[in-house]
Amino acid sequence: MKNEAQKEESVSKESPSPTFERINRQTETYMQGILQGNIPDLSRAITLIESSHPKHKEQARALIHALLPYSGKSIRIGITGVPGVGKSTFIERLGTLLTGKSHKVAVLAVDPSSSISKGSILGDKTRMPGLIRNPSVYVRPSPSGDNPGGVNRKTRETIILCEAAGYDVILIETVGVGQSETAVHAMTDFFLLLKLAGAGDELQGIKRGIVEMADAIVINKADGDNLQAARLARSIFQQALHVFPLKSAGWSPPVLTASAMHNEGIEEVWQVITDFVQKMKQSGEWDKKRMEQDTYWLHENLRSMLWNRFYSHPEVKKELEKQLELIKNKKITPYDAADKLIGIISEK
Amino acid sequence: MKNEAQKEESVSKESPSPTFERINRQTETYMQGILQGNIPDLSRAITLIESSHPKHKEQARALIHALLPYSGKSIRIGITGVPGVGKSTFIERLGTLLTGKSHKVAVLAVDPSSSISKGSILGDKTRMPGLIRNPSVYVRPSPSGDNPGGVNRKTRETIILCEAAGYDVILIETVGVGQSETAVHAMTDFFLLLKLAGAGDELQGIKRGIVEMADAIVINKADGDNLQAARLARSIFQQALHVFPLKSAGWSPPVLTASAMHNEGIEEVWQVITDFVQKMKQSGEWDKKRMEQDTYWLHENLRSMLWNRFYSHPEVKKELEKQLELIKNKKITPYDAADKLIGIISEK
Repeated sequence: MKNEAQKEESVSKESPSPTFERINRQTETYMQGILQGNIPDLSRAITLIESSHPKHKEQARALIHALLPYSGKSIRIGITGVPGVGKSTFIERLGTLLTGKSHKVAVLAVDPSSSISKGSILGDKTRMPGLIRNPSVYVRPSPSGDNPGGVNRKTRETIILCEAAGYDVILIETVGVGQSETAVHAMTDFFLLLKLAGAGDELQGIKRGIVEMADAIVINKADGDNLQAARLARSIFQQALHVFPLKSAGWSPPVLTASAMHNEGIEEVWQVITDFVQKMKQSGEWDKKRMEQDTYWLHENLRSMLWNRFYSHPEVKKELEKQLELIKNKKITPYDAADKLIGIISEK
Repeated sequence: MKNEAQKEESVSKESPSPTFERINRQTETYMQGILQGNIPDLSRAITLIESSHPKHKEQARALIHALLPYSGKSIRIGITGVPGVGKSTFIERLGTLLTGKSHKVAVLAVDPSSSISKGSILGDKTRMPGLIRNPSVYVRPSPSGDNPGGVNRKTRETIILCEAAGYDVILIETVGVGQSETAVHAMTDFFLLLKLAGAGDELQGIKRGIVEMADAIVINKADGDNLQAARLARSIFQQALHVFPLKSAGWSPPVLTASAMHNEGIEEVWQVITDFVQKMKQSGEWDKKRMEQDTYWLHENLRSMLWNRFYSHPEVKKELEKQLELIKNKKITPYDAADKLIGIISEK
């Protein structure tokens, strides 16, 4: 398949109007397979989405377009926490609980750094042995990608495919120390932060601003010698959450304790999530938030496209360095430097 | 002066290279006056900056350019808090303390909302009767402006003029419930949050994300019946600050109590600020942060210029509405919609 694709190079990258209407036979096969919940078809379709080959891109776009009306029915849950907090075990337990309640669960990961430094540490199937044997669970490792924007887009499109395939809970794992939490927060309905007890852990590692995104905080590893510390951490967090206004109207993020290892507290976490879903759907916030997220991604994509167009201009690149130097030496203000740089593309 | 200016309309808005070199006689007069600390010249120059007339803009730009090398020597302090927290009284006390220590103090305000809804509630001179009689203090109300970007630029340029005029502490007041706190945070060395005791106040009013920017928190009105509540609020905040990692390396934001009304705790706040300044200057963080802020503003200005160019395109405006509707009806993904919109300016 790859060789066949590589032969065809005629698709114009510049074409602004994709050929949505043309779905070839293979795409049609994928589409029907996905709608019937066929896992190999789903996997191949996601591989298509992750490909950077122009022909694959076109196919993927047609497929997404065709499946979009079947998407949107799941609960999308972001799960974050520093390495060592026990995300895999937690996801394994939560996933198993959910399939026991007749849910179909997809586990995705967003980890833009994986391709650069440490391999695919998220969504690694060997880390969730129970889930990969479970026929109601689909686990997909983080897409590799040269830029976070690409990874984000691929993940959002993978969500669409999984929803079309009938997965009604999507768990999206992210590492909690990198660049991807804002993105995962902006593509999920519920954002869960896993933490450990102990001031050391609380002060280190976790990135500034992530606590503020949480819809719930779970102090994990609340077991054995750690139980008292975990309960203390919970009450400290509860108090802190009274001081900092984390979320806007309609929801106060609760703090829970759990032991994924001993399978304790997982049911309670799910109860919080279902309460949240019910509350948001009743108030109309659910659909509103989804539309706000889509609008965010539209503008975010536009922003990054405009940005890339501008900064890839060879003269802009050269002049930018020069202007930063002038700013440093107090020869020009940032505003005038920006004006000068914009002048480069205005002259054309 | 205004009539004279209005006659001349020939200056091209499109000109990418401002005539930095040409400083006319009036601009020269302003420049010399400002460098000598002449207040009427400073005021007139700021009025020039705030004007939207093309001729004034050009003059202002030349003046800023000429004075830029004399800028940068002050401590720039952002002060925020909800209405009623006692900002005016606090600034009056702090300003008076500082002039007693031979500082020259400029008080500016950033309040983009003032022109729309509630008049100039910040920087209103009648709110600081002690300061406006003080010859070492310069008070300037918030510039009116139709957009936050314009107000932000005017304020940053006003800082340059005030520094050139010898003011070595610049206090920049903002209201703590609007859009301008991020901007003030990004143009100051130290960001101070004023709060009141009491859970009601803590949970309401203050905008999400503002606490996280603070270099110090002051619980104001810690006097009389309110003293115990203020002390309790301080210890709750101190604990919360241990849980949430607010600032990166080198500085842990302290929580203090003060009573601006009774002139208590103001000296302690100043001590914290001077400790901060000393620490940051020793570590090299001071200059680094200033340069990061300038770089931020360069890119922020570019972003907003690119944005305005794009969204003011009549076809983009029309198509944007259409694409949002398609997204809502699950006919297109945000990414494909963005691609389509970018196509409009690519076709040219």
